[in-house]
Amino acid sequence: MIDIIHEVYPYLHVRGGPAAIDFHKEVFGAEELVRLEQPDGRVAHAELRMGPATVMLADEFPEYGIRSPAAFGGTGTTIHLHVDNVDALAERALRAGATMVMEPVDQAHGERQCRIRDPFGHEWLLGHPIPAPSR
Amino acid sequence: MIDIIHEVYPYLHVRGGPAAIDFHKEVFGAEELVRLEQPDGRVAHAELRMGPATVMLADEFPEYGIRSPAAFGGTGTTIHLHVDNVDALAERALRAGATMVMEPVDQAHGERQCRIRDPFGHEWLLGHPIPAPSR
Repeated sequence: MIDIIHEVYPYLHVRGGPAAIDFHKEVFGAEELVRLEQPDGRVAHAELRMGPATVMLADEFPEYGIRSPAAFGGTGTTIHLHVDNVDALAERALRAGATMVMEPVDQAHGERQCRIRDPFGHEWLLGHPIPAPSR
Repeated sequence: MIDIIHEVYPYLHVRGGPAAIDFHKEVFGAEELVRLEQPDGRVAHAELRMGPATVMLADEFPEYGIRSPAAFGGTGTTIHLHVDNVDALAERALRAGATMVMEPVDQAHGERQCRIRDPFGHEWLLGHPIPAPSR
């Protein structure tokens, strides 16, 4: 290949950047690394450390064609997180305004999973390892 | 925090999983690590190594509420890639059916960037470092 991919960052667009940053901190324990705010209060760019990854986040900028799940009525991307405890994290997310899309369930491939939708319309598939089922 | 985030994976939903896997291989040099196909031909789950990251991908499963940007008419998530050469990668993406959303431009923060939309409606912000502008 001519080109090499050096880094990969999910970049979430939201309606309500400051509140979304708060949500990520409160629910996911995100650490705010960077926040560039515009005079109009919109977050032009933010970087949030989430475990080993950096998740980027910005407000909608319809003037540049940047819109969020709130504009589209949904999302075709999920962020899949491997976490310590799916149930505890989902409970905290729900308290912070998320909705449960798929209740926690033990999957046959050895992962307990649930799916939540955050208040900004992004969807998160949460998983933690469980013992493989006996056969 | 009670929970710790251990891993973060972008999970892209597409209409046309096998063709989307081909696109990622051809354009991004992705390595196919996992592919689970259903009898109906849909990709239930795939894992693609892209540089240091694993990107997950699956077909739409409307019966489980899983839809792609083709269903929503757009996406509120961007995948930001740091690459060797924005222009060369964009050219290859366009040859494979992507469209240019933002032409390559040298940004003041020291990154040459462009934005493309792949044939499945996902958007990619490509960047490579450039010397900081003299002031």
